Amino acid sequence: MPNLTGNALFAQSGGPTSVINSSAYGVIAACLSAAEIDRVYAAKNGVRGILTDNLIEIGEELQARLPLLKNTPSAAFGSCRHKLKNPEEDDSEYKIIEDIFRKYNIRYFFLNGGNDSMDTCAKISRYFEKSGYACRVIGVPKTIDNDLVLTDHCPGFASAARFIATVTAECALDNSVYDTGSVAIIETMGRHAGWLAGSAALAAFAVPGVSDFKNSPSAPDLIYLPERVFDLEKFLSSVSDIYKRKSKCLVVVSEGLMLADGTFVSEAQVSGTDGFAHAQLGGLAARLASIVKARLGVKTRGIELSLLQRCASHLASAIDISEAEGAGRFAVAAAIAGHTGKMAGILREPPRHLCEDGACYTDNSYQSAFSLFDVAEVANAEKKVPPEMISEDGSYVTQAFIDYCLPLIAGDPERVYKDGVPEFFTL
Amino acid sequence: MPNLTGNALFAQSGGPTSVINSSAYGVIAACLSAAEIDRVYAAKNGVRGILTDNLIEIGEELQARLPLLKNTPSAAFGSCRHKLKNPEEDDSEYKIIEDIFRKYNIRYFFLNGGNDSMDTCAKISRYFEKSGYACRVIGVPKTIDNDLVLTDHCPGFASAARFIATVTAECALDNSVYDTGSVAIIETMGRHAGWLAGSAALAAFAVPGVSDFKNSPSAPDLIYLPERVFDLEKFLSSVSDIYKRKSKCLVVVSEGLMLADGTFVSEAQVSGTDGFAHAQLGGLAARLASIVKARLGVKTRGIELSLLQRCASHLASAIDISEAEGAGRFAVAAAIAGHTGKMAGILREPPRHLCEDGACYTDNSYQSAFSLFDVAEVANAEKKVPPEMISEDGSYVTQAFIDYCLPLIAGDPERVYKDGVPEFFTL
Repeated sequence: MPNLTGNALFAQSGGPTSVINSSAYGVIAACLSAAEIDRVYAAKNGVRGILTDNLIEIGEELQARLPLLKNTPSAAFGSCRHKLKNPEEDDSEYKIIEDIFRKYNIRYFFLNGGNDSMDTCAKISRYFEKSGYACRVIGVPKTIDNDLVLTDHCPGFASAARFIATVTAECALDNSVYDTGSVAIIETMGRHAGWLAGSAALAAFAVPGVSDFKNSPSAPDLIYLPERVFDLEKFLSSVSDIYKRKSKCLVVVSEGLMLADGTFVSEAQVSGTDGFAHAQLGGLAARLASIVKARLGVKTRGIELSLLQRCASHLASAIDISEAEGAGRFAVAAAIAGHTGKMAGILREPPRHLCEDGACYTDNSYQSAFSLFDVAEVANAEKKVPPEMISEDGSYVTQAFIDYCLPLIAGDPERVYKDGVPEFFTL
Repeated sequence: MPNLTGNALFAQSGGPTSVINSSAYGVIAACLSAAEIDRVYAAKNGVRGILTDNLIEIGEELQARLPLLKNTPSAAFGSCRHKLKNPEEDDSEYKIIEDIFRKYNIRYFFLNGGNDSMDTCAKISRYFEKSGYACRVIGVPKTIDNDLVLTDHCPGFASAARFIATVTAECALDNSVYDTGSVAIIETMGRHAGWLAGSAALAAFAVPGVSDFKNSPSAPDLIYLPERVFDLEKFLSSVSDIYKRKSKCLVVVSEGLMLADGTFVSEAQVSGTDGFAHAQLGGLAARLASIVKARLGVKTRGIELSLLQRCASHLASAIDISEAEGAGRFAVAAAIAGHTGKMAGILREPPRHLCEDGACYTDNSYQSAFSLFDVAEVANAEKKVPPEMISEDGSYVTQAFIDYCLPLIAGDPERVYKDGVPEFFTL
């Protein structure tokens, strides 16, 4: 592979997460110390910043503050939802991108985002291959939805899962405080995949000595994922049964629940569309709470976790922060080694069979490694929660889900607090 | 004061907080080590547990787990909203209470709650005075609303304030991530007092070097407290002005905002009443978001912090935990010293003028002490945010509010985590 020297560009895309800035830190720090890379730029508001010649050079002043990125949620350099056309059909935006890249001598491009961003990486690298402009394009995964294929999981997911698990446990205790009965319904994000809703099951482990995770006093009673058709009558009957037994019930639902006819349960609330033509969802918890109240005559409360689940960096997982930074560093190393059109994903190491002093045992502790995947294979595909991780009746997750998810939320990261509030990076 | 020996009873009342269990720890630990007190009981679900003879003895098994109470939100022994009648009008419930107290030889009674609980303390101590049953009754304050008079602030408030400040800062960053414009509206609790909504202003300090707290990138743009009449047209005009300038706007509103005619802004959502005949509020953020969207034609998002603000013990303030426990211990000491019909409140120490080696300076660091207040004076009164803490145009808080509130949220407490989720006490 020929040695390629020049400048590097980093961009953030799609919805922010608690750790997307940790990947920014990883990419930028690795670029700054790479012999092949001279200057490092960040695009303001993702691809839109490239198209409008709005690049920020990571100069000395910004470099001094970079470590704060690991404590900072949201996308520090701004994001966008801009879908590039197929270069084979309309290459006008690609020509602008190549012009800007030539202007700044960008030879390394790192795009941090979800499925749509991997699609953007695939298209740009395809275009450059045809145009002959030498530039290595590597995607860095990020999405709280955890719906990227091939990678074991996505940076961003574990921190959202840890937030959801923690506040679900706190709400479970709060919801059982009165003896007058209460049904609470917590709504998580997750348009088509139930990873976030499922992570509420980890709330079980907030009380010591849990043997049956589903019956822990800090666990939700019911969890509904969008992988299964939502049956309102079955739901009401399950809530009613639990309420009769415990005089309380805590339900977790994914915003993307659908009825058998393919309409979103929250459909009446659909009021707009984002740039990728996905219906804007929300208001499901309030809606189900009012249905339960009307039908079962009990006190209810709908709780939408809203933006908090994707930006609550105060509850970020230490593993997530570390892997997000690591994926960024790995992406830079891969590009320098000559790769392009790839995504820096995560592989989970299988259990290790070890023998020491004649005694053999299995080490199940969580360990991961980075690996490259083809961006075209990741682009626009969706990883749903597999059937073996969903309970047969569709109202909970299984032990297999717990085994997958619990190791990812471990670890309380070192946090930077001043006056009781966290200390954040801003441009 | 005659020496009074016997057993002690602790009860929790009203809405839970992140630190009400820290007060439980303080009361119970102090009672267990007091020579005058033999057995210690907790009432299950507050006063209702007394009326139904449902007391839990704090035996050895529970004692071993008591320290976890300081890490645990919600009311571990259960709460209720039970309003006692005036003993002069109907003393039937007081007779039951005295019977139960005699049965268990309760000579020390500690009730942990808000205004209504102080009313309960006042009534019970008044009744015992008349009936001649020797029992000392001390209230321990608790309310996230911070609306108790006489005490400088209430245990529970600072932790809710810290949660609100932190997530407001996180949402401010998240809300500025796209260049397409967005108005986000965060709704806090606070029926008649704006302490919680105002605490969102502390979000300003999440970025280093803030000189003008209102213009910090992590601060909300507008904050509306229920102490001022809400003017929808002025609100829309303020949002519009800010949006034109910044293409984004973050607003914080208290659930209890009222129009000039005295109706709650969220009134259409009022759907029930709690035991104290306060209207159940909620849904204000969603409502204002839809009005802004319709009137200004911009993308909006309503975020109701809901239960999270009162149970997010993972963001409890270290000062709050310590003061909540201290108030509990002080209540026990006061009762043993002979006091009854009092509340264990908090006094903030004034700045101290100190001279050392000839150099004199003012020590402004936060320090507090406990003091006793008459429960009858606290009962049913409400402390609102005073005019000097609200900006003239009613759309923000002032430096005086910041000076009052910021010291209270300092300090990240030692937390107990296992597998990434907190470890909680349960009965």
